[in-house]
Amino acid sequence: MFLDPNGLEVLAPDACRELVDRNEIGRLAFDEHGRVTVLPVTYAVIDDRAVIRTTTGSKVSAAVSGAQVALEVDDIDPRRHVGWSVLARGVMELVVDEDEISALDAAGLHSWGQTGNHFLRLRLDDLTGRRMHNGTRRPAR
Amino acid sequence: MFLDPNGLEVLAPDACRELVDRNEIGRLAFDEHGRVTVLPVTYAVIDDRAVIRTTTGSKVSAAVSGAQVALEVDDIDPRRHVGWSVLARGVMELVVDEDEISALDAAGLHSWGQTGNHFLRLRLDDLTGRRMHNGTRRPAR
Repeated sequence: MFLDPNGLEVLAPDACRELVDRNEIGRLAFDEHGRVTVLPVTYAVIDDRAVIRTTTGSKVSAAVSGAQVALEVDDIDPRRHVGWSVLARGVMELVVDEDEISALDAAGLHSWGQTGNHFLRLRLDDLTGRRMHNGTRRPAR
Repeated sequence: MFLDPNGLEVLAPDACRELVDRNEIGRLAFDEHGRVTVLPVTYAVIDDRAVIRTTTGSKVSAAVSGAQVALEVDDIDPRRHVGWSVLARGVMELVVDEDEISALDAAGLHSWGQTGNHFLRLRLDDLTGRRMHNGTRRPAR
């Protein structure tokens, strides 16, 4: 087990990918007019990409198309103070091909709020992750 | 109930604040050398600020001191597809006053990994939030 300088286990890319594949809720972070913003999103992994469905013309769609974003997926138990977090980073792509849109539509992906037919996707080739094992060590007093 | 263009309930600032007060896990988003990054953090609300404890000299501490950040707090049920999300935005301040550090140390705040004595805080005066009620409406086919 490889630990980072903070004592957290560094997850290998394939372990990160498995965790992303098994989950469906993430937090999407992006720059919105010079201010960093985070939104919860539902995603599905299709063809090695996290795909997010959003409303046509939504602020998020305008802000993230072609932009550097980060999608964070985690599962944290605040009582036991254990958990993991995976970060996927890259450029978010707006799907414009009609056939691809139809295929993604048929995949039954949900979105928060009103469901739109804009699909955004992020290639899952830059994955980093950490696992926290008993992170509650108190400092020596 | 005020709805945004996506059909999500817009939470008033005092409702956002109450949700932040009642929770302890958030996701901190910030710019790391031009790339947006998100990390899970444990926070405590002290004197109208979210306070995060980190390791002295850690990357996060260097990256966010004096920087525009966003702290996202949420509780989402992916099965029922309901939940809420609150975003606190502002400039992260590194606490440097020794008396303040001692007081924050005594407050027993935890951190992930090894516990350090760097305290970062974010004033909770720019809060926005949304609540999702049955966000799974499928598009008309």
